[in-house]
Amino acid sequence: MFDWLVNPDIINMIPSHVERVFVGKKCGQHSMQQADICQLMVEVALTGKNIVRLKGGDPAIFARAAEECDILAKHQIDFAIVPGITAASGASAYAGIPLTHRECAQSVRFITAHLKSATEEPNWQALVAGASCSPSSSIGETLVFYMGLKRIGTIMQRLETHGLKASTPVAVIDQASTAQQQVCIGTLENIAQRVAEQNFQGPAVTIVGEVVNKRH
Amino acid sequence: MFDWLVNPDIINMIPSHVERVFVGKKCGQHSMQQADICQLMVEVALTGKNIVRLKGGDPAIFARAAEECDILAKHQIDFAIVPGITAASGASAYAGIPLTHRECAQSVRFITAHLKSATEEPNWQALVAGASCSPSSSIGETLVFYMGLKRIGTIMQRLETHGLKASTPVAVIDQASTAQQQVCIGTLENIAQRVAEQNFQGPAVTIVGEVVNKRH
Repeated sequence: MFDWLVNPDIINMIPSHVERVFVGKKCGQHSMQQADICQLMVEVALTGKNIVRLKGGDPAIFARAAEECDILAKHQIDFAIVPGITAASGASAYAGIPLTHRECAQSVRFITAHLKSATEEPNWQALVAGASCSPSSSIGETLVFYMGLKRIGTIMQRLETHGLKASTPVAVIDQASTAQQQVCIGTLENIAQRVAEQNFQGPAVTIVGEVVNKRH
Repeated sequence: MFDWLVNPDIINMIPSHVERVFVGKKCGQHSMQQADICQLMVEVALTGKNIVRLKGGDPAIFARAAEECDILAKHQIDFAIVPGITAASGASAYAGIPLTHRECAQSVRFITAHLKSATEEPNWQALVAGASCSPSSSIGETLVFYMGLKRIGTIMQRLETHGLKASTPVAVIDQASTAQQQVCIGTLENIAQRVAEQNFQGPAVTIVGEVVNKRH
């Protein structure tokens, strides 16, 4: 049972005798709701079949794994979790931008741009508190937004409103680690405009902080 | 050239004709300084050899990769970065604790317990700002401290002093993902004492937040 975010090269590695079920969730195009995915996993497992629940990235980070584990445990279905390379790490390696740096980023924070309800917003004040340290301080923080392409204008505005400098470096990495990867570099002030001029397809990862200037 | 944190099972996969150089840095027992590692990489590369710089975890997160890339670039030595599974993801999967959760953790933050200088401290106020949301709010945050075993008492005290509740759940995972993995569960108030009663060897990862209660 695999998601939209799984690289086709990986899907092609699945042996031909294995049944493939696409349970993809794409922004705005949920082919299945989370509750239905959970229910399907239970139904199939109870027939005695083994399931591989294949996700893009790391299952512990913005991947709803906790909900899937909950329902399996409730039905006493054994499972094991295999960690993966989260989107921030993949994007970082393939775009050459470190996530932490001794000089300017002694922590890194992963934030989803999709909250539980549309009216809910991240705690912007708290997000900015770590990242907005003065450049002279060696204690700074990197912010990484997952899946924020459609909301990038709003996210950048909110960060600026809450105190992050307009000149803070920002990188948007589209389809990170694939042959179609594209990278757009800018600042809090101009990145939304620059991204709008590209033909980004998503999924995208947005990296905010001085580490963007450390790019190779 | 491999670090202390690389699993011996992985070291054993290195073909026998490949020269192995241990450049390990273990807390308090640096066998080589970072500058010496960088220098050695350049010297070996300039002899025309290919180097694999093997690290534990993900090279972009608390692994000094940026400094190593800097010096390679300066000497016009080509390199590629291969992403890895960061310690937080490995510990999360093998301890069954999610890092984010729709109900209680809509962001996750990785923090090093080892700052550039001994007198420097993390921005505790900023760290607590995201994590200390009331349990009734669905917007919370998970904190993951890397390599904090020796400083765990201080870290927990600082978090409490700056406003995190004494009852906040905490998990310490020692030697995560190895056969020697041990997990200690407690709260901000009692975890340091509980860990002291164990024979943890490190490296350890400390997870702070409601997600610890979602453990399977």
